[in-house]
Amino acid sequence: MTQAAQKLNEEKVFKDPVHRYIHVRHRLIWDLIGTPEFQRLRRIRQLGTTFLTFHGAEHSRFGHSLGVYEIARRVIDIFKYRNNWDDSETMIALCAALLHDVGHGPFSHSFEKVFGTNHEEYTQKIILGDTEIHRLLERQGEGFAEKVAEVIGKTYPNRLVVSLISSQIDCDRMDYLLRDAYFTGVSYGHFDMERIWRVMRTVDDQIVFKLSGMHAVEDYIMSRYQMYWQVYFHPVTRSAEVVLTQILHRAKTLYQEGFQFKYTPHPLIQIFDGNMTLHDYLKLDESVILYFFQVWQEEKDEILRDLCCRFMNRRLFKYVEFSPSLIHSKDQLALAFKQAGIDPRYYLEIDSSSNSPYDLYRPGEEGERQPIELLMPDGTLHELSQESDVVGSITGMRRTDCKLYFPKDRIDELPKQETYRKKIKQLLGI
Amino acid sequence: MTQAAQKLNEEKVFKDPVHRYIHVRHRLIWDLIGTPEFQRLRRIRQLGTTFLTFHGAEHSRFGHSLGVYEIARRVIDIFKYRNNWDDSETMIALCAALLHDVGHGPFSHSFEKVFGTNHEEYTQKIILGDTEIHRLLERQGEGFAEKVAEVIGKTYPNRLVVSLISSQIDCDRMDYLLRDAYFTGVSYGHFDMERIWRVMRTVDDQIVFKLSGMHAVEDYIMSRYQMYWQVYFHPVTRSAEVVLTQILHRAKTLYQEGFQFKYTPHPLIQIFDGNMTLHDYLKLDESVILYFFQVWQEEKDEILRDLCCRFMNRRLFKYVEFSPSLIHSKDQLALAFKQAGIDPRYYLEIDSSSNSPYDLYRPGEEGERQPIELLMPDGTLHELSQESDVVGSITGMRRTDCKLYFPKDRIDELPKQETYRKKIKQLLGI
Amino acid sequence: MTQAAQKLNEEKVFKDPVHRYIHVRHRLIWDLIGTPEFQRLRRIRQLGTTFLTFHGAEHSRFGHSLGVYEIARRVIDIFKYRNNWDDSETMIALCAALLHDVGHGPFSHSFEKVFGTNHEEYTQKIILGDTEIHRLLERQGEGFAEKVAEVIGKTYPNRLVVSLISSQIDCDRMDYLLRDAYFTGVSYGHFDMERIWRVMRTVDDQIVFKLSGMHAVEDYIMSRYQMYWQVYFHPVTRSAEVVLTQILHRAKTLYQEGFQFKYTPHPLIQIFDGNMTLHDYLKLDESVILYFFQVWQEEKDEILRDLCCRFMNRRLFKYVEFSPSLIHSKDQLALAFKQAGIDPRYYLEIDSSSNSPYDLYRPGEEGERQPIELLMPDGTLHELSQESDVVGSITGMRRTDCKLYFPKDRIDELPKQETYRKKIKQLLGI
Amino acid sequence: MTQAAQKLNEEKVFKDPVHRYIHVRHRLIWDLIGTPEFQRLRRIRQLGTTFLTFHGAEHSRFGHSLGVYEIARRVIDIFKYRNNWDDSETMIALCAALLHDVGHGPFSHSFEKVFGTNHEEYTQKIILGDTEIHRLLERQGEGFAEKVAEVIGKTYPNRLVVSLISSQIDCDRMDYLLRDAYFTGVSYGHFDMERIWRVMRTVDDQIVFKLSGMHAVEDYIMSRYQMYWQVYFHPVTRSAEVVLTQILHRAKTLYQEGFQFKYTPHPLIQIFDGNMTLHDYLKLDESVILYFFQVWQEEKDEILRDLCCRFMNRRLFKYVEFSPSLIHSKDQLALAFKQAGIDPRYYLEIDSSSNSPYDLYRPGEEGERQPIELLMPDGTLHELSQESDVVGSITGMRRTDCKLYFPKDRIDELPKQETYRKKIKQLLGI
Repeated sequence: MTQAAQKLNEEKVFKDPVHRYIHVRHRLIWDLIGTPEFQRLRRIRQLGTTFLTFHGAEHSRFGHSLGVYEIARRVIDIFKYRNNWDDSETMIALCAALLHDVGHGPFSHSFEKVFGTNHEEYTQKIILGDTEIHRLLERQGEGFAEKVAEVIGKTYPNRLVVSLISSQIDCDRMDYLLRDAYFTGVSYGHFDMERIWRVMRTVDDQIVFKLSGMHAVEDYIMSRYQMYWQVYFHPVTRSAEVVLTQILHRAKTLYQEGFQFKYTPHPLIQIFDGNMTLHDYLKLDESVILYFFQVWQEEKDEILRDLCCRFMNRRLFKYVEFSPSLIHSKDQLALAFKQAGIDPRYYLEIDSSSNSPYDLYRPGEEGERQPIELLMPDGTLHELSQESDVVGSITGMRRTDCKLYFPKDRIDELPKQETYRKKIKQLLGI
Repeated sequence: MTQAAQKLNEEKVFKDPVHRYIHVRHRLIWDLIGTPEFQRLRRIRQLGTTFLTFHGAEHSRFGHSLGVYEIARRVIDIFKYRNNWDDSETMIALCAALLHDVGHGPFSHSFEKVFGTNHEEYTQKIILGDTEIHRLLERQGEGFAEKVAEVIGKTYPNRLVVSLISSQIDCDRMDYLLRDAYFTGVSYGHFDMERIWRVMRTVDDQIVFKLSGMHAVEDYIMSRYQMYWQVYFHPVTRSAEVVLTQILHRAKTLYQEGFQFKYTPHPLIQIFDGNMTLHDYLKLDESVILYFFQVWQEEKDEILRDLCCRFMNRRLFKYVEFSPSLIHSKDQLALAFKQAGIDPRYYLEIDSSSNSPYDLYRPGEEGERQPIELLMPDGTLHELSQESDVVGSITGMRRTDCKLYFPKDRIDELPKQETYRKKIKQLLGI
Repeated sequence: MTQAAQKLNEEKVFKDPVHRYIHVRHRLIWDLIGTPEFQRLRRIRQLGTTFLTFHGAEHSRFGHSLGVYEIARRVIDIFKYRNNWDDSETMIALCAALLHDVGHGPFSHSFEKVFGTNHEEYTQKIILGDTEIHRLLERQGEGFAEKVAEVIGKTYPNRLVVSLISSQIDCDRMDYLLRDAYFTGVSYGHFDMERIWRVMRTVDDQIVFKLSGMHAVEDYIMSRYQMYWQVYFHPVTRSAEVVLTQILHRAKTLYQEGFQFKYTPHPLIQIFDGNMTLHDYLKLDESVILYFFQVWQEEKDEILRDLCCRFMNRRLFKYVEFSPSLIHSKDQLALAFKQAGIDPRYYLEIDSSSNSPYDLYRPGEEGERQPIELLMPDGTLHELSQESDVVGSITGMRRTDCKLYFPKDRIDELPKQETYRKKIKQLLGI
Repeated sequence: MTQAAQKLNEEKVFKDPVHRYIHVRHRLIWDLIGTPEFQRLRRIRQLGTTFLTFHGAEHSRFGHSLGVYEIARRVIDIFKYRNNWDDSETMIALCAALLHDVGHGPFSHSFEKVFGTNHEEYTQKIILGDTEIHRLLERQGEGFAEKVAEVIGKTYPNRLVVSLISSQIDCDRMDYLLRDAYFTGVSYGHFDMERIWRVMRTVDDQIVFKLSGMHAVEDYIMSRYQMYWQVYFHPVTRSAEVVLTQILHRAKTLYQEGFQFKYTPHPLIQIFDGNMTLHDYLKLDESVILYFFQVWQEEKDEILRDLCCRFMNRRLFKYVEFSPSLIHSKDQLALAFKQAGIDPRYYLEIDSSSNSPYDLYRPGEEGERQPIELLMPDGTLHELSQESDVVGSITGMRRTDCKLYFPKDRIDELPKQETYRKKIKQLLGI
């Protein structure tokens, strides 16, 4: 069994609205797609609660994962044409591209917040643990799974392979910007991907971009910027996240307090108890979550019932802008909420767009610290924001968006004469 | 309270990838969209199991329903501009367009087959029964809900309003062809909708099309034809339907035989017992179904377990072409399957694409019998297939596609020397 | 100097709205594009007078020629991947694809009708004659130009190469359908080109299509059908052709009769005299034609002046349907026109869409006689119309569209009481 | 005769690739489109020499003019729906939108540079002078033409009407960005036009934008920025402009020096003599120019011949970056060119992108000085760059792009040993 992956007799394709076709030429890729762990991605939406804001955004991580694979495949073809690629890395790169998101759980953002799980860790566990994916990877050669995991974990020695999967302009981001724009229907998110591919060069295991393609890169950066603020950080989506998070919180709290559920969330018990196995994790998907939200609308606990009803029927929280400096006013609000009989632990929440815009175009954390480098005609490298006026101007900027979420309908229903009603309305400025 | 619906202060919009924006100008429409019954459509896919063939087809009936409403709104605007429209029908038509699919359940096709439910009946019940939708409609004026139900039921006296929602070229079909093409990513399904709108005329409460627009109509008919055979009747989608149907069958049978489920399907009990209420029905969605398919992979019953595992992990049945004249060979196959220990009641299924292509472009059943009429320059009406060579040629055709589905993997695993294995392989021609 | 064409150091690209990018990797291709003979195609519109019907159709044969080359390049890449291609034919095929239309003159259709020239002959002359293109081709190896000319002339021994450039589904047609649809903006003309490429197989030097791709082929045939009737044979475009033809006729006749032009059409003198050289031909383009049409609006000859004014200002002829069986009525009309002082030689013209629809999908003339063959799973070949209901139905059809063109404004201006006016109106049925 | 324009019995449409359909409902608009002055726009390319860089950019000002009209029509419909529009201004606004570019001549940029003409003046003359357009406008009511001219000239009292046609975000710019992006095929140039329309508000005769639509406006500004630098100021396009300008210069100089042309440019004589009438101007179009460039390749004057040959066959000048501070080196170059026998008056040209990027997003000259104002929720207006980080950052920037153009081929052919060759190469840094 060697790393030279077996070719399929006949190329297989998936029809894809973003890349027209996804082409599969290796048996390993085909088999990986067929595993239960990968098929599970069909039941996890790419954009979590965004479908409650943009109704087209119902697409799953399955299509995105195929898309990242396809972009990697095409970029590698271009690198090969230019003799810039070591072909023995091809299968590792393609598998890493395909599997980079396989550890995502249902509504990851909220889920991880409440239960402290981490989808990147689970991606590693799925690749290295007792799974079909792992067995298929190891068939390719001993240690192969480990290498794939290293690429995703950004510890793989060949930085070029790592950059392909995770860097400022990687196959992951290129796919999700185009795909999320397609499914939401927004006009942002488009950029000239083929132009970017054409100006990609490799210098010392690093992907750089020819100066002549700077504008395509600028356009990509601006697309990303617009997608973040127009789609990913949309306040309504965040409101849905807040409600979702509160449901999970409430359910966990109730369980820990010994509440007798009418509908016990079997698949969540282990995670409530803090001893979830990989096997348990793999049984979770959005159907499981939504099923319980559906039936919990009939639980006795009023908070759980109300929050589930809000989420299922899109009766979300409203919001006001909130300056972090006013944190004391939140305490006052919490007090007034309590007086009004509205539990502030579940009905008053600050949400700050934690991914600051700064990360959007420049060094963020850990492995992604490398900047975008332009290859000048004289062979030197210049960092993008030095050359591009537009990017340079955004580079200095930090944008924070902090909002306070609450159930406006509940406030409106409060007895008009009560002091706490006035207090609340005054503090919220509504 | 009168039928003149209240206007919103500010028009509201939904971003839609197919129509760019859905515009809502009346409070009633806005409120209907906000009901639990309508929001539930977000959890029911437009194309059932098609996402297992075309991974982009994960869109729900929610977006489609908005789309049908939007097309109706735009067509009515054009009719109004030409003084061809009685404005007192506007709200009835818009509500009917929006709500025409509200009775759909999860995976309706299979569901109705197994349980004998009917989504059209449920649409009527939701509009006329004890629901938020009903209450909103009645606020518009007494008897308003009844009228909306009549439009959808095709018994409404104003045939023009009925035609807008259900006829050979109605707002429903125009939306789903474009939408399903968009989300699957196929190149069929496109036609010049605006041209069709422009050549629509009304003659005696009937929608007809100016001769000069015949080619746009032809193109629509061909799009529909291609979508049916390339997407809607795709053999892999039908394989998934077969497996799904068998799961529901098996679960129902087990329940009726007193099987002790590890995971009792509470929301399905009433339907198993044959006494489901509207309230029960409204709690059903695809999450509920998928949740149980997920957990039933751990039930003791081997057939249920296996079928669920197949569906969830897309290990579907294979198929061979099957001529209905060979029905006796099916009996022989069933016998051989039994000998091989494969229960033919669940593992051997004929699926015939029942919507014959003939219906695609010409009179089908009940209310849809009206043909497409062209308005000639001299004011007479000619039936489309008389004028169009292309449509005329398809009109005479009846296309049936009959396939036999079975688990090829199980056959392959049978002991090589056994007679029934040879028999099965010979009968299937594999 | 060998046939192994020199590679460019760096691939060059043209931004193309249809194929995103045209990729040029060989110096020969790059140099051919730079020749005066090829650059001249920028000044010849792809669709002649169609821009007077669809204002977007202003695109030239230059972009189309690049597009055909690009499609050939991509198809050859796929053939190479499948080991179905003899790489020594690559440069011949690419040059033939690029140059297949290089002999087109301005408004070829009308021009050839009046002067008896033939763009295919000129393509041969340009490739084989005293031109930069010829010199470049011969640098590639002696006899290379001859081979390229043979491919375009369909006499090249390797039928596969010929089929790529001219057959029922060739690179030429694939490009023009997509390109003309793009620039006119019509919704017809789209088909799944990549799917067609994927199902192309080579059997005995013939291009055939896997049965599984039949629907994509059907869709292509239908697109072609619609484009012919909706765009290429549009009656207004044909009216402009009629006027254009009459201008050329009139100018030629005047010249031959010794008329003293105020603006002598120097570049057309040789062709009027019937002794045009290749060098003369290459100086002709649409600017030349339009320049003289522009200035001839000031010539003394009233017919020439009027026709030029009509063409330049889009005051075209009107038309009525005309059955060829009524040919005697044309004679009557001609008589009445004469009486009315309207010269019927220039103002009364029958135009019949000579490319009958039959050619569109089935054997036509000469080299294109080969039908479209489907490759069945058992390896046999079946002719498309045998397998496809839709194509089968069109195959039997012959559609002729015959129209009589005349200047309605002139008729309307005739004295109301005159007998010939009534006669004319009656015969035309207007 | 009143300003209430006559409606057409049946709406007429033009198929348009950018806006799908252009809808014409008034006889006046239909008739204006049919005038010779308007039809002439078909023979003047929208983007001048850009087609030599982006081969798709062959579209004319005709389609653009229809597009601007269509956008105005749709925006006015929205304003009317909101009761923000005085309907007596509709026809004035629509005519101004349609006719705003009617005075453009062939290759306006170069033409105006050489002959000192001004297309805006000609637009005024066409609307107010002895033309069919003028007569049609006056049929609408006395003084109507004057009003239309005032809107285009930005002196019309109703600022709202003026803003619609010329302001930072006007119908003209919206159309050309989308249209030029479409025809060139670049991915820049797209923005959410319908969103912008929806957030447009009128405050005191000024068009402002709701804060909630700020991102769509940002996106529009960025599109414009990218289109300018990627398309409009493309160095190859500018090279073609330089060559074109030099041809016109040379021809004018030769004429004035009494040169005997083999092909006298009759339509240009008046302009050479400086006494061109409106009537003469209207006979000019790109065919005229290209015809003479074509035949002048055979004139005796070597410079004229060579320059025409360069333009027709796209053998353009090369360029190097040039800092305006090095103006003395241009003198040295000119001297060396002279020594080398290359006339620097025609073969050495500095081109600076005169429309500085600063104008792109903020006050420029004359009537366009008004900034983009955002309407805040509290009803106040804030200037865009105050609110938008992205626009704010570009606002401070001034980008100049200065290049020196010359015929590199001529330099390369100079005798290697000559001092001036070395001098030239050193000064140019090539």
